Amino acid sequence: MSTSALLPFISQAFDQMPFNRLLGLHVSHFSSEKVEVSFAWSDTLVGNPLQHILHGGVISSVLDTAGGIMAVSSALGRLTDVEPAELAARLGKMSTIDIRTDYLRPGRGESFVASAQVIRSGNKVAVCRMELHNELGVHIAVGTGTYLVG
Amino acid sequence: MSTSALLPFISQAFDQMPFNRLLGLHVSHFSSEKVEVSFAWSDTLVGNPLQHILHGGVISSVLDTAGGIMAVSSALGRLTDVEPAELAARLGKMSTIDIRTDYLRPGRGESFVASAQVIRSGNKVAVCRMELHNELGVHIAVGTGTYLVG
Amino acid sequence: MSTSALLPFISQAFDQMPFNRLLGLHVSHFSSEKVEVSFAWSDTLVGNPLQHILHGGVISSVLDTAGGIMAVSSALGRLTDVEPAELAARLGKMSTIDIRTDYLRPGRGESFVASAQVIRSGNKVAVCRMELHNELGVHIAVGTGTYLVG
Amino acid sequence: MSTSALLPFISQAFDQMPFNRLLGLHVSHFSSEKVEVSFAWSDTLVGNPLQHILHGGVISSVLDTAGGIMAVSSALGRLTDVEPAELAARLGKMSTIDIRTDYLRPGRGESFVASAQVIRSGNKVAVCRMELHNELGVHIAVGTGTYLVG
Repeated sequence: MSTSALLPFISQAFDQMPFNRLLGLHVSHFSSEKVEVSFAWSDTLVGNPLQHILHGGVISSVLDTAGGIMAVSSALGRLTDVEPAELAARLGKMSTIDIRTDYLRPGRGESFVASAQVIRSGNKVAVCRMELHNELGVHIAVGTGTYLVG
Repeated sequence: MSTSALLPFISQAFDQMPFNRLLGLHVSHFSSEKVEVSFAWSDTLVGNPLQHILHGGVISSVLDTAGGIMAVSSALGRLTDVEPAELAARLGKMSTIDIRTDYLRPGRGESFVASAQVIRSGNKVAVCRMELHNELGVHIAVGTGTYLVG
Repeated sequence: MSTSALLPFISQAFDQMPFNRLLGLHVSHFSSEKVEVSFAWSDTLVGNPLQHILHGGVISSVLDTAGGIMAVSSALGRLTDVEPAELAARLGKMSTIDIRTDYLRPGRGESFVASAQVIRSGNKVAVCRMELHNELGVHIAVGTGTYLVG
Repeated sequence: MSTSALLPFISQAFDQMPFNRLLGLHVSHFSSEKVEVSFAWSDTLVGNPLQHILHGGVISSVLDTAGGIMAVSSALGRLTDVEPAELAARLGKMSTIDIRTDYLRPGRGESFVASAQVIRSGNKVAVCRMELHNELGVHIAVGTGTYLVG
């Protein structure tokens, strides 16, 4: 099984994570260079009701999810061939070591897209850079995540 | 209204935030020195289903919430007297500038407590240090958050 | 005095900071959108002598310096007019609240350029994104800094 | 050679790093649980001359150094026996992945001590928590560093 053939499997695994479903996240774009995770506004995701904006935790969650998918994909891309069983094992061991989120503007909008790119790639640790925009292209947050991938 | 009399109001405001309710968070301890935010395990909070552990985003969310309450309280504690209307206005303007979360151990347990303490106190910016433990005292994560409070 | 006329004053103030001189830093480009801080390789800046690469602290120092200049400039750009005395007072109060550095590749090269851009601009707090490259364009590190500017 | 016998070798390796010498750092305490790195005030370490305080980069540098020593020591402590040649090889590969520094109070004092403790220990990655105090016990900064150790 080639690594590009694995993308739908990785995508599906993240879409089915219970907390990602609670937030309404889905992987809307996925290639070996870039991943995008999307979600729609929901009143259940509000932090401060006076401002009617997304809770900071929602933003950190979706940035972490986008970065995690990209990190796994980056690590698998270094392999020439992966069996589904090994893929599952790899996904099971993958974890976030640390993440920083910078909140740039209030989380307002109808729909949101988090994108991630790899900035450090290794067989043990990967570092990703993530961004969150709304449907108008407003830049809401950036994040940097360090992931254990091997 | 003295600042200590404000604690129940602040506590209630955070308990009622829609996303905090979705996560099942509640402020379980609150004084001018320390705040604790608790929640019970729920299958909806799972990230990786193979490992059956909390999603990293849940952990960042609760740490951010605990830090935010502590930061607001710290800023209000500098005032000698606050009216409820000013309190509401202050809470509405308070926001997280940035947060770092370090995931130390898998998020397993029946119930969890996030605690926060102020490490830098100012009338414009406060910095808090947060920790997450489970009911057995296992140290799951630490965080550092910078908050706009004035 | 217009804010653009202030750039040389800000630049000079940073060039003359004792620790920046110890590192051999100088402001090599400065506009209202972007700042660049350059320095040459020196054996005194080595961390691990086995690898003969820059000490991580050197990298954090130059990223912090570039971000700080950009943050000050951003805050001053919001004013229509600033007197030299007020500028000095502002520079004296400006401080870094927190900074994160991600080390992407070993710090090797003959000369290095740190660049900074503002990603959150405010009259109390500014957030900058910084990058370090060597003379061959190798991307060595990224950073994110939060600055108190008002 | 037992791991405790290695402490002086590790300590010496860090003391001799060129940039640590430029800053005047020395390992003043070192056990398997805790490390302390000390340095004296010097006018060459000043950032803002108006405030006459330590440059933020000096603080990040010493926190990174203390965390790095602790991380290496933690990784070596997992081995029952290490030969000097392997130790040198390990030290040569060890590197900082990322670090966050929070500046809590101005860096004033006659002498300073940075201390570090391990908060996540692994055979690939270690995370340390660092603090900087002056000779009066004033808490100047905290940091969190993630290190590649295996």
